[in-house]
Parts: sequence; structure tokens; C-alpha cells
Amino acid sequence: MVTAAAYAVTSAGSAFEKTTIERRDLGPLDILIDIEFAGICHSDIHTARNEWGGTRYPVVPGHEIAGIVAAVGSDVTKHKVGDRVGVGCFVDSCGECDACRADEEQYCFAGVTATYNSRGRDGERTQGGYSTHVVVTERFVVSIPDGLELDVAAPLLCAGITLYSPLAHWGAGPGKKVAIIGMGGLGHVGVKIAHAMGAEVTVLSQSLSKQDDGRRFGADGYYATSDPATFQDLKGKFDLILNTVSVNLDVDAYVSLLAINGTLVELGLPEKPIEVRAFSLAANRRSLAGSMVGGIAQTQEMLNFCAEHGIGAEIEVIGADDIDSAYERVIASDVRYRFVIDTATI
Amino acid sequence: MVTAAAYAVTSAGSAFEKTTIERRDLGPLDILIDIEFAGICHSDIHTARNEWGGTRYPVVPGHEIAGIVAAVGSDVTKHKVGDRVGVGCFVDSCGECDACRADEEQYCFAGVTATYNSRGRDGERTQGGYSTHVVVTERFVVSIPDGLELDVAAPLLCAGITLYSPLAHWGAGPGKKVAIIGMGGLGHVGVKIAHAMGAEVTVLSQSLSKQDDGRRFGADGYYATSDPATFQDLKGKFDLILNTVSVNLDVDAYVSLLAINGTLVELGLPEKPIEVRAFSLAANRRSLAGSMVGGIAQTQEMLNFCAEHGIGAEIEVIGADDIDSAYERVIASDVRYRFVIDTATI
Repeated sequence: MVTAAAYAVTSAGSAFEKTTIERRDLGPLDILIDIEFAGICHSDIHTARNEWGGTRYPVVPGHEIAGIVAAVGSDVTKHKVGDRVGVGCFVDSCGECDACRADEEQYCFAGVTATYNSRGRDGERTQGGYSTHVVVTERFVVSIPDGLELDVAAPLLCAGITLYSPLAHWGAGPGKKVAIIGMGGLGHVGVKIAHAMGAEVTVLSQSLSKQDDGRRFGADGYYATSDPATFQDLKGKFDLILNTVSVNLDVDAYVSLLAINGTLVELGLPEKPIEVRAFSLAANRRSLAGSMVGGIAQTQEMLNFCAEHGIGAEIEVIGADDIDSAYERVIASDVRYRFVIDTATI
Repeated sequence: MVTAAAYAVTSAGSAFEKTTIERRDLGPLDILIDIEFAGICHSDIHTARNEWGGTRYPVVPGHEIAGIVAAVGSDVTKHKVGDRVGVGCFVDSCGECDACRADEEQYCFAGVTATYNSRGRDGERTQGGYSTHVVVTERFVVSIPDGLELDVAAPLLCAGITLYSPLAHWGAGPGKKVAIIGMGGLGHVGVKIAHAMGAEVTVLSQSLSKQDDGRRFGADGYYATSDPATFQDLKGKFDLILNTVSVNLDVDAYVSLLAINGTLVELGLPEKPIEVRAFSLAANRRSLAGSMVGGIAQTQEMLNFCAEHGIGAEIEVIGADDIDSAYERVIASDVRYRFVIDTATI
């Protein structure tokens, strides 16, 4: 077993505390990673605080992991010691179902093993990236290309692929009009990627306070959703809208901004059901869709794409002692745009 | 002006009464049609009883019209006297917007002119097919191919295209698994068309009472949605589900039956908003979509397809005096499967 230092919470209401956890001995296909950076995702907060239910304590969150390969199992061929690597939201899947065979492990029929607060195929509970080390089977370890710094790469492992996958699936590119609702941890990466794909990108944000940043990231348009005129001006305009906001919005209002055959993809996961009028969808043959991160092959494709286009997340690096205060700031939308833990401070 | 006999209601609560209405003089591009049959669509009932609001009385419903060309305007080239023709849900559109130019007149940016209870581009209110004659501009008059009887063709002008269009748009065909929710006026035509397209077709009906019919129309599977086992057995199975039911269902339960990239298309228009959990869509990257009849070119394509495959609606022909009782039977789901008025009785 490898003993790793980590930051964990022991109950829904408790603060993060330094602890030690055991990582499994390396199996033939396992890779030991020295974690250098771990991003903070809103899902981490939901899980740490048991807001989705099902959290088993103590829990070490973190599924935006960037680091260096420290050791490899006897049969590992995909990576070698010293390689710059990343791990995202899941660390195993059945490998045999139609979804896995189609490189869509995130939809594995048997259910993926999440990077933390999940039960591994060995029966042990998984613990995430707020830690010095992690052991992951090689199939779920991706390469971080040279030229992409590990700190700005970390959030791409969840936020990046969550946006890249629907943009690729629904054909964002030249001639396509894409809107991104919300310019936070997810949204700002979406603006950069959609722009790099060649789409015309519009940000729909509550206010114009981040407009300068949005333009710098590549937005062609920037509108305040607090202004009713926005919904008049943009009616029927977009081929694709990605909603990164996880509170319940007036979905009909946003659906009305879709062109013929347009799709609104929900990426945030609001607690209450989404309400939409059938007529809003019938007009213009619109779709309301969901999407969940992306497969391992597409995650690698995304990292290569980001390296090629010089895209990293906009980050604020923090020490492990600041996780609790960072959580409060994420909830208050007071971060531009993603917190990343420097795990050297653990 | 052409004086036509018609059946109209004069208020939300009134019975149908025989009356006369004026049809406009033939303009250069107009066609006068001797109506032979008019189908009864559930929308007719909603409008006659003002259940959607906005009904202006007196109103003559009917947008499933089959008949014979009686006269043509001076510049008409598309049809000639004696031709077998049909008219569906709309009779005009701007002709200039992107939707119209893409043969998707149903999504005309300026709004289509509905066949009844609408205001025409000449400013006059439109009146529908429960009548002996109608005048329609040639662009909105389709040909009913030989070999397709006018009575069974009439319901295809709304019910047929409402199902054909999403089946074609979402690629129903060999290797695709399609489910149809509800086997009424819309659903039974959908089963026939999806089967003729080569898809594997499953009916999801409240009970098994129409199973024999469903199999005869081409269903490969037939399940009762009142049986909870149905939702276990069919989980993740379908590429495309068409919901023809206009009451609010447990949409999450039906969405769970979709395979990866599957789409549930809402064709009924329930009064209350649809509720769906974001997670239901995110799992398997599913879509909830809407669709509204189809364009004129696709309506003609659908009629040709139905003629080629021997597909007509299953109908019960009634006299005009029986419209009120037919409405009650439609509401009670007591019709197999579409009422068609023989306009010779008007």
C-alpha cells in the first residue's frame, strides 16, 4: 500500500482536515501518480456537504487531477515514469458494454467508478485528488501534452471535457452560432474552446461584469440575462446553447433563443426538475439535451486540442488550508475562474 | 365569392350547426377544392371548445382535407381541374424567410396561416375543412397519389405528416429502434410509417387492448405502460421515442428508455409544462425534442411514401350530423383510429 497525505471532510458540516489515506498496491496495469494540482469543482462541494445524498465519510474530493507518473505496474504500456498525466471524473468502467466499446465510458451500462465517493471494481471506496498520490489503472490516465502547464490543465479534466464533448457532438464550428449560459468555471472554458473551434460565441451572463474577460476569451457577443431585451434581441438565433448554470432557470425563455433544429444542452444539474413547455420545443423543432463529461479518448482529444490552441483554465492557485474558504467563494461565484489546489501544500 | 356549406360552432359550449361561409374569389394562384373528406383531429376539439384560448367564433375546424380540384386561378400550374388533392394544417406562409426557403414553412418566422381560426395574409379569418369547398393558394395544395383513397388519405395531412416528419428527421430506418407512445389517431399511423421505413417498432400503450391491431400495423413489440415491468424491461433500449399522448406523463420514466444519443419527441401538446430531471438527460446524452407537422415538400414526400407502401389511416367515416358525438368519442379514446367526415353529408 502507498500511504498518501490528503485533505478530507468527516461529516457534511465539518471543515477539511489533513489526514492520511492508503492507495492500493500497484497491479500490473496500475499507475502511481504524484499529484501536483487538483482543481475544485462544484461537484466536490455537493459531495463534501452531502447535498446530493450518498456521501460516505471521510471523503477526499477532487476529480481534476494533474501530476507526474511516479511508478507503473508490470504490464503498463500507455505511460512511463516521469510522464505528465491527468485523471478526470472516473477511474474505471466495465470495458465490455456497448458504451465502453464506443469510447463512451461515462455512459458505461454497469456504471463508471467515480474518482471519489464511489466503490471501485475491487470493492474499495475511491478517494479523490485533494491528495499527494493516487493509483489509477492506465486506461483512465490521459497524457497532458507539453506546452500545457499542469495547473491550468487540471480543470480541463472535468470542466474542459464537460464543455468540449457537447461542442464536438453538436458540431460547433465555423458557421455555427453557440451561446454559453454562465461564465464561471465551466462557462469560461467553453467560450475558449467554442471560439477555437471556429464558432460564433455569445455569452449569456446575469450581468456584464465579466464582459471584458469574456471578449478576451473569444466571445463575439456578451449579453446580460437580467435585461429582458436580451431575450427579444436574440430570439431564434442560436444553433447550440450550453447551460452551465446549476440553478433552475426559465428554460422556456432560453429555448426561445434557439434556431430551427437548435439544441439547448443542460450541463449544470439543478436539484429541481427542469420545466419546459412542449410548444417551446415544437416551435423550430428544438431539443433539450443532457451531456455528461466525455469518454477517455475524447478527453485526450480535448487536451491535445487545448494544447494546440493554447487553451488552459483561468485559475487561482491555493494552498490546501484554504479549501474551506475557496468553497465559500465558489458558492458566492467569487472566483475567476477555477480554484486549483497546489498539492505540495498538503 | 364562392358560397360553401359548412359546420361551425358559435361558442365554446355550443353544438355544431350547419351554416354557409364565403370563400374568397380565386386569385391567379388560387385553387378551388371540392372537399370530399375532412378528418377530425384533437386540435379541432381544443379549438372548437377554446381550450387553448384564442378561438374566434363562429369557427369551422378541419385541417385534414382531401378533395378534387374544381377550378384554378389564371396562373396556377401545380394542379389542374379534376386532380386529387389535399390540404393540411396551414394554407400560407411568408415564403421569404430562412424557414420557408428551407421548405420548413411550418416554422415560418412570420408565422404560418393556419387552415382555420387564423388570419390570412389578406386579413380575412380562415375557416377549415368541415365544409364543401375551400380556396387555397397552390403552394399549399399537395397531390394525393393514385392508389391512396381520399378518405384514408385525409388524416395523413395532419396525423401522417406529424409522425412522418420526426421519423424522417431522426433517421428511423433499418437498425433503429423506435417506440411510439399511444396508439390513437397519431400513433397508429406512426406505427405503420416507422415499420415501412424499416425500423424496429414498439408500441407503448396504457393497456394491451389494441395489441392485435398494433401487430397488424407493423409493431414488433407491444407493451402496457400500466405494468411497471415495462420500464425495467425496456430500459436504455430506444433510439427514438415519439410521444403522441397529450396528457402529462412521467417523462423521466420514458426518457430512461432511451439508448445513448436517443431522443424523445413530444408530439402531443400537454397543457402543463413538461418536467424532466437534468440527470435523466445527462445519462446517455439524451434529448427531449419537439416537432410540428412538416413542410409542404415533406408532406408530398410523405403522401408518396404512404401510397407506395399502401399506408392509409384506419378510419371511421361519419356524417356531419355526428361531429358532436364523434368529439365525445375522441375524448374517450373510443375511436379506431380516426374519424373522417364525409362532406357529401354537409
